[in-house]
Amino acid sequence: MALHPDRLLPAEPGIRAIARRLYDGVAGLPIVSPHGHTDPVWYAEDPAFPDPAALFITPDHYATRMLYSQGVRLEDLGVARRDGTGVRPDGRRIWRLFAEHFHLFAGTPTRLWFEHSLELVFGIDERLTPQNADALYDRIAAAIATPALRPRALYDTFGIEAIATTDGALDDLAHHDAVRRSGWHGRVLPTYRPDAVVDPEAAGFAGNVERLLAMTGEPATWAGYLAAHHARRAFFKAQGATASDHGHPSAQTSNLPADEAAALFDKVLSGKADAAEAEAFRGQMLTEMARMSQDDGLVMQLHPGSFRNHNPSLFEAFGPDKGADIPKATDYVRALKPLLDAVGNDPALTLILFTLDESTYSRELAPLAGHYPALRLGPAWWFFDSPEGMRRFRETTTETCGFYNTVGFNDDTRAYLSIPARHDMARRVDCAYLARLVADHRLDEAEAHDLARDLAYGLAKKAYRL
Amino acid sequence: MALHPDRLLPAEPGIRAIARRLYDGVAGLPIVSPHGHTDPVWYAEDPAFPDPAALFITPDHYATRMLYSQGVRLEDLGVARRDGTGVRPDGRRIWRLFAEHFHLFAGTPTRLWFEHSLELVFGIDERLTPQNADALYDRIAAAIATPALRPRALYDTFGIEAIATTDGALDDLAHHDAVRRSGWHGRVLPTYRPDAVVDPEAAGFAGNVERLLAMTGEPATWAGYLAAHHARRAFFKAQGATASDHGHPSAQTSNLPADEAAALFDKVLSGKADAAEAEAFRGQMLTEMARMSQDDGLVMQLHPGSFRNHNPSLFEAFGPDKGADIPKATDYVRALKPLLDAVGNDPALTLILFTLDESTYSRELAPLAGHYPALRLGPAWWFFDSPEGMRRFRETTTETCGFYNTVGFNDDTRAYLSIPARHDMARRVDCAYLARLVADHRLDEAEAHDLARDLAYGLAKKAYRL
Amino acid sequence: MALHPDRLLPAEPGIRAIARRLYDGVAGLPIVSPHGHTDPVWYAEDPAFPDPAALFITPDHYATRMLYSQGVRLEDLGVARRDGTGVRPDGRRIWRLFAEHFHLFAGTPTRLWFEHSLELVFGIDERLTPQNADALYDRIAAAIATPALRPRALYDTFGIEAIATTDGALDDLAHHDAVRRSGWHGRVLPTYRPDAVVDPEAAGFAGNVERLLAMTGEPATWAGYLAAHHARRAFFKAQGATASDHGHPSAQTSNLPADEAAALFDKVLSGKADAAEAEAFRGQMLTEMARMSQDDGLVMQLHPGSFRNHNPSLFEAFGPDKGADIPKATDYVRALKPLLDAVGNDPALTLILFTLDESTYSRELAPLAGHYPALRLGPAWWFFDSPEGMRRFRETTTETCGFYNTVGFNDDTRAYLSIPARHDMARRVDCAYLARLVADHRLDEAEAHDLARDLAYGLAKKAYRL
Repeated sequence: MALHPDRLLPAEPGIRAIARRLYDGVAGLPIVSPHGHTDPVWYAEDPAFPDPAALFITPDHYATRMLYSQGVRLEDLGVARRDGTGVRPDGRRIWRLFAEHFHLFAGTPTRLWFEHSLELVFGIDERLTPQNADALYDRIAAAIATPALRPRALYDTFGIEAIATTDGALDDLAHHDAVRRSGWHGRVLPTYRPDAVVDPEAAGFAGNVERLLAMTGEPATWAGYLAAHHARRAFFKAQGATASDHGHPSAQTSNLPADEAAALFDKVLSGKADAAEAEAFRGQMLTEMARMSQDDGLVMQLHPGSFRNHNPSLFEAFGPDKGADIPKATDYVRALKPLLDAVGNDPALTLILFTLDESTYSRELAPLAGHYPALRLGPAWWFFDSPEGMRRFRETTTETCGFYNTVGFNDDTRAYLSIPARHDMARRVDCAYLARLVADHRLDEAEAHDLARDLAYGLAKKAYRL
Repeated sequence: MALHPDRLLPAEPGIRAIARRLYDGVAGLPIVSPHGHTDPVWYAEDPAFPDPAALFITPDHYATRMLYSQGVRLEDLGVARRDGTGVRPDGRRIWRLFAEHFHLFAGTPTRLWFEHSLELVFGIDERLTPQNADALYDRIAAAIATPALRPRALYDTFGIEAIATTDGALDDLAHHDAVRRSGWHGRVLPTYRPDAVVDPEAAGFAGNVERLLAMTGEPATWAGYLAAHHARRAFFKAQGATASDHGHPSAQTSNLPADEAAALFDKVLSGKADAAEAEAFRGQMLTEMARMSQDDGLVMQLHPGSFRNHNPSLFEAFGPDKGADIPKATDYVRALKPLLDAVGNDPALTLILFTLDESTYSRELAPLAGHYPALRLGPAWWFFDSPEGMRRFRETTTETCGFYNTVGFNDDTRAYLSIPARHDMARRVDCAYLARLVADHRLDEAEAHDLARDLAYGLAKKAYRL
Repeated sequence: MALHPDRLLPAEPGIRAIARRLYDGVAGLPIVSPHGHTDPVWYAEDPAFPDPAALFITPDHYATRMLYSQGVRLEDLGVARRDGTGVRPDGRRIWRLFAEHFHLFAGTPTRLWFEHSLELVFGIDERLTPQNADALYDRIAAAIATPALRPRALYDTFGIEAIATTDGALDDLAHHDAVRRSGWHGRVLPTYRPDAVVDPEAAGFAGNVERLLAMTGEPATWAGYLAAHHARRAFFKAQGATASDHGHPSAQTSNLPADEAAALFDKVLSGKADAAEAEAFRGQMLTEMARMSQDDGLVMQLHPGSFRNHNPSLFEAFGPDKGADIPKATDYVRALKPLLDAVGNDPALTLILFTLDESTYSRELAPLAGHYPALRLGPAWWFFDSPEGMRRFRETTTETCGFYNTVGFNDDTRAYLSIPARHDMARRVDCAYLARLVADHRLDEAEAHDLARDLAYGLAKKAYRL
């Protein structure tokens, strides 16, 4: 059951040998994690992690959605109901339930990340079964009580060089400030994520904007609102941020004349905007954010195309982020045009695009990124943060936009222990891809070594200005 | 020319050895065929098959469409014109024409199914050519006159454990009844396919509904119409049905208030509904059928996304199902939402989704099936019932929804002799996929053996409640 | 660095051996180039090529777009501004800049074409670097001054049997005429490309139509306009043309009654047509062109789905064809229906379809081409004229429409020196695909040899009626 040293490398012996050499050159590189969702309090206060279920199962929507799809109730996995009802099972019960259903994860990245973490962090090289569930639970529980498993120690164990969190525009970044003031050597960067004050359809939008304006002392006008964003971005930047992040339903952008934008702002703030106006406002704000990036140098990231909270009864009972966000067909060519017309030719701007619609890679994204100086492609994301997903990403983009219009790997996770597993997977899959190009005589091995280092380390650092 | 024992297994020797071991474990498993279009009269009356052309060519739209695309006239393949004109060639002439064009099938599954059947059923391991066409015709014609080639004997020869047919809602299921009453050991199940009484755009819709109501003694009201479906489903279930099947132009669903649904029913019955209303009615009926499945336990299957009878002059001359049904882009995320909002969280319901738009596998279908307890994914279907199609199905779904949100293989065929060939192909391709995961160290070989058995046999039996 | 004899063939030794044998059988076949954009003056006047940058870089939008995407200015690559401003660098400076950025092309077909040309035409087997840039520039510059590097000599060196150019409807084909009158043995065919007189949104449309009518002595009526096309097609055919080519924003077709078509013609000519009417007119003209093809036998090619000149500031500064044409999602099933209803069942017509939206291959194009006698699929085009693109083309079409509904390779290039490199790549990739089918026992090697010859040579000759 133990992790095989050649896992995820091509099985054909000749190609595997090349891939192995490439991988050996990057396996030990530091981890640069420019986009993710770990909790900054971990770095600020260095707490022990709670029990194994809370560490591996309950907060991981990849894990809970699979069990839910097969009839397991979320309550039984420790997911809290919004109304507070329901008995919350203890960690051991959740862990046993997970063990009973562990076969469901065969062939999924969740299984690979989980087993990587078990072995490399806890020294466990047995497959989880109902029979050994209790014993493994005890071993993990004992280990996470030790100082070596605290977040700051793991930061070093994992070889992290820098890690970004994702933070709302209204966040006071107190934990980031505490990290900096603590003198600890770790580098933890906030990321400006203004969705809650940008999306008129977000819960509490008007109140959020009110708070934004109050925090910055700006008036409730279009100019004041933009100035407030400027100020918050400056604050984030002062706390180390190098990037902003934008999760929108679509990639729609707008570039309205200032008076129309101002009128639209008034309307969305009044709560009277319809869906099309909300979409136009979000789109306008992407263009505004891109212009602010031209000024302040924050790298901009756009993650469109998820139908959030597709399951209303689940959303009502448990809230967002419970595995019911479903990708949808996404257009970039028409949608991004207003923004690109305005700023796409600026090589000083970096706008990183992600997708959940793989058909766009070869059709739209690689052609766009292979032309516009401002565009780069983010790595395979979410459901495609997987061996086949990453392979298809390279196969459908490289020939059109090359490697240097991509930005290395994002782990994009809130599961701290999975970070080395995810980076390791990406490094292996990229080395496998490069090895196939070498074996086909499309690349020399020497340049493949350089590319492997760039894909594993250099491109992320450069694209995110770290 | 003889069938190679390792056909369709990966060519790299190390992976092939794994695949071979996996395949050896499933090659002899019984065939469970939960969805298909064989003629129930075969099982009821056990007739001899007609001549070789009528067995292999004339009724097979995969075969006739390819020849038609290269300029062969359908009349010359024995396809009858609706108006009765035209001289129908004898079987031997059709067979010779097929032999002359046999090279067109290089690289297609039709060729693989055909050669598998020739060798395993008739012991013919020569490639069909114009030179040997007559001799092969004679051998096949002689064989199908023998008792060993009758449907019931082949049922045993093929190792079939259960086989479902597809039957209109108005069908009296007399053949199924005859099979049951005959005492024969074969298991032949009807499937409730109500399209002709559900789709306002189907030929003769109003008359069909009238017959449905007459058969069940229900009034021509929305409530009566639903009660009639209930009654027919109960009748099908009593005859062994475990599933319903729905072939719709799109995956659109609706969930209207009862009074609106009733008004819509009146309108579609009056023949005054427009295309949007027809679509809404079909969508409403999918949700109603799902609710009935919650009651009676029939597994529900949805096959959307085909533009039926795309070629009007061909349709006029020859009728439906002549190879002119063309897939189109299909949305599931928005389309299924009304149904899923109503019943998607019920683990007791099974709704199996199929697609002809592969881009939906990774983008929509695997994420939906990996979340909703009621959803499962049907196998690669129609044009994708092929080695590459099946491979892409696994590669684009497994990482997101695993193996256990899929339902094994459907042969979906009216070509009885091809059934073992089709199941064998699916088993080989799935074993090839699993072997690659083992060779990459993503799976252990032991669990791959279990998975191979589930994909070949267990999942179909379980999903279809057989 | 030298070209490996097994480049682009599968790395697994057993499959490579098969692929090698297949490739050996086609490597030396003549080049049939039925669709491309070389300049007919080359064949008429046999001039020396200018400097290396003008040969390899400045006119190649694959090269310039990649450098532009990474911040290099088009002016610095020698691309002329429309307004004549800017200092145009000399060829050596451009070449050095290209050498500095050559790593960007790792993994792209541009790199493979370039290195193939360097080695086979100039005997250079070093990788281009900033260090050797000047030396290579000098070698190439010296070589292109010699008679052996003139277009007519290269025609023979490259083994070209026939090559088509692409020519506007108003072109006098003087160079083609000169070639024919010269007695030179090369076969250079014009292709009728009427976009500028068919697309109401083309620059100068009304004036173009006026010239068309003047050239043919036809009146400015719908009937006159159609007669003018007839006449120009006859003229092209007399100069050797066997095909027409149509680059449209979408695949939309129309089939209006004659009076409506005539009224639409009047409207688009008046300049008062809106976008929908322009689209309808382009669509009508596709159907008209198909009807004319039924009469005169010209093979029809349709290249839809590019959003031309997506970058308006670049377009304004530099004009069209500078790398800012971006593919978009393309529908064929509904769009082609009016045309197919009219002429799709005619086996005497050949309409070759191309796509920039790969999702349509398995969903729409292969099913359509596998049914309609008039349809064939063009090869992987533009961004997909690449090893992975060609592989995916075969994998997503062959199982549904076979090999014989495809038409061999098009190089589609204006880069004369890349022609052998492009055909060689296609031959290698097709042999690799066939070898995998042989290794999987889906084909016999003997028939794979025949198929390889058809894909490399026979199908192009037959489909384009050469």
